[in-house]
Amino acid sequence: MTKREYIISQIAKTNKKNYENYVVTRIYHRLNRNDLKFMTQQYVNRPDGHALTDMYFPQLKLHIEIDEPFHKKQKKLDINRESDIIQATNHEIHRIKITEDLTKIDNQVESLVERIRKNIEIKERNDEWEPWDLEKEFNPLYFQEKGYLDVNENPSFRRIVDACNCLGQNYKSVQQAWFKSKIYPNHNLWFPKFYENDEWDNKISSDGKIITEKCKDKDKYESWFNSVISNNVKRITFPRSIDNLGFRLYKFAGIFETSIDDSTFENGIIHKLIQTRIEIIH
Amino acid sequence: MTKREYIISQIAKTNKKNYENYVVTRIYHRLNRNDLKFMTQQYVNRPDGHALTDMYFPQLKLHIEIDEPFHKKQKKLDINRESDIIQATNHEIHRIKITEDLTKIDNQVESLVERIRKNIEIKERNDEWEPWDLEKEFNPLYFQEKGYLDVNENPSFRRIVDACNCLGQNYKSVQQAWFKSKIYPNHNLWFPKFYENDEWDNKISSDGKIITEKCKDKDKYESWFNSVISNNVKRITFPRSIDNLGFRLYKFAGIFETSIDDSTFENGIIHKLIQTRIEIIH
Repeated sequence: MTKREYIISQIAKTNKKNYENYVVTRIYHRLNRNDLKFMTQQYVNRPDGHALTDMYFPQLKLHIEIDEPFHKKQKKLDINRESDIIQATNHEIHRIKITEDLTKIDNQVESLVERIRKNIEIKERNDEWEPWDLEKEFNPLYFQEKGYLDVNENPSFRRIVDACNCLGQNYKSVQQAWFKSKIYPNHNLWFPKFYENDEWDNKISSDGKIITEKCKDKDKYESWFNSVISNNVKRITFPRSIDNLGFRLYKFAGIFETSIDDSTFENGIIHKLIQTRIEIIH
Repeated sequence: MTKREYIISQIAKTNKKNYENYVVTRIYHRLNRNDLKFMTQQYVNRPDGHALTDMYFPQLKLHIEIDEPFHKKQKKLDINRESDIIQATNHEIHRIKITEDLTKIDNQVESLVERIRKNIEIKERNDEWEPWDLEKEFNPLYFQEKGYLDVNENPSFRRIVDACNCLGQNYKSVQQAWFKSKIYPNHNLWFPKFYENDEWDNKISSDGKIITEKCKDKDKYESWFNSVISNNVKRITFPRSIDNLGFRLYKFAGIFETSIDDSTFENGIIHKLIQTRIEIIH
């Protein structure tokens, strides 16, 4: 996917919502920077629950909400358990209000654009600015150079093999969702699906802190349950999801540890988030 | 309709065509002038026939064509005889080519925007610039002050009564499509439908120069035919059409004169364009 395709696809997600399309294109074209990534209609997890954000700038942790007071917006959360949901704790939300007078909308956009420009300038001055680079963003080498994965930065990979190799597994291709780490003692790499499928019924809480794991094969259940409880291995977890343009994504969700106290034979095994950051050893 | 509603509706017409939406919004937002009117997907009549224009600036007589070489654009002309078609002889056409590299598209838009700005500056300097004004554009008083109607400027009215009063009829309301002029001797004001209806099957040629008129009532046909031929009155013609946003429009099409030589009992009466401009006497 090229930047052209990416940007056109993001804008296209607003194409039935005329005011959203107006504001999103105006922000984009007035900013006139193609080193600034954005998503439209991105699911986010905020302290008060899941929401859909009209425009999201990941480099700035900034969300734009477009409010249409005269025309109640249907914000049906068409979310499913496969949807990519970004963690948005401590992110900023900026509101653009759709008013009767177009000039007032334009003025709000102009102030926002000015603010974003200043924000980027400050980041540049502090050497904190990372231009959007399609080649880098899902590239294991980029994260290896960076030296860590942090849940707050929503680091993601397009393929399981990329996440594995980022953490030193050195594979050519993979066919499973579970790997013993070659680098981190007593850690596994785990690529779960948090939506029910033939073999598993696994869930993650909306705050991303608690995973419930349940094997669906009744014949294997007991041996599976006992082996997980006894092994007690930490899990470097990359849930599988589908991003807002429909592409597969494995996003780092943190390191989880099995909670023997909370797990029960009836309800399944509970894993709890113990680290949101992992240093990349290489 | 406010400017906000107008602009949003024009942009909305591009909402399923992602590249068109990108380019149209970019041109609009980069120009950043709300005194410049535009239409999207406007039918035009050019010397080589009817066409659909991607973005049209009536004040500049400028049309933007968005070319997608890698993705053959379906330009089905969904035209019907009720569609508003503007005369675009001597209008300029500017092409924006969709390229693989978004920067190259942006650069083309930037050059265009620069050109349009200069164009407006020149018009302002020469006192030829008329800012877009929703209050004026269909207002009979505006045209009376201007002093004429000219086909090349596509002057239009929303209601029959407005066109009548612009030309001195002084009505409160009207219920017909045909009026004897109080001002212009031996002229009638005519508001025909150029699509078949219960009573009439009237047509206008695509170059706007020849009207064929046919009464559909067989009992009245002969007396109608003979009376038109013998009266030989000139017709100040405002065909009824539907504009690109779905609103009714009566656009001045010129003054027509009955051609006795070309009219036949079988094929109907032929009227020929004799003047594209009328001076407003008041």
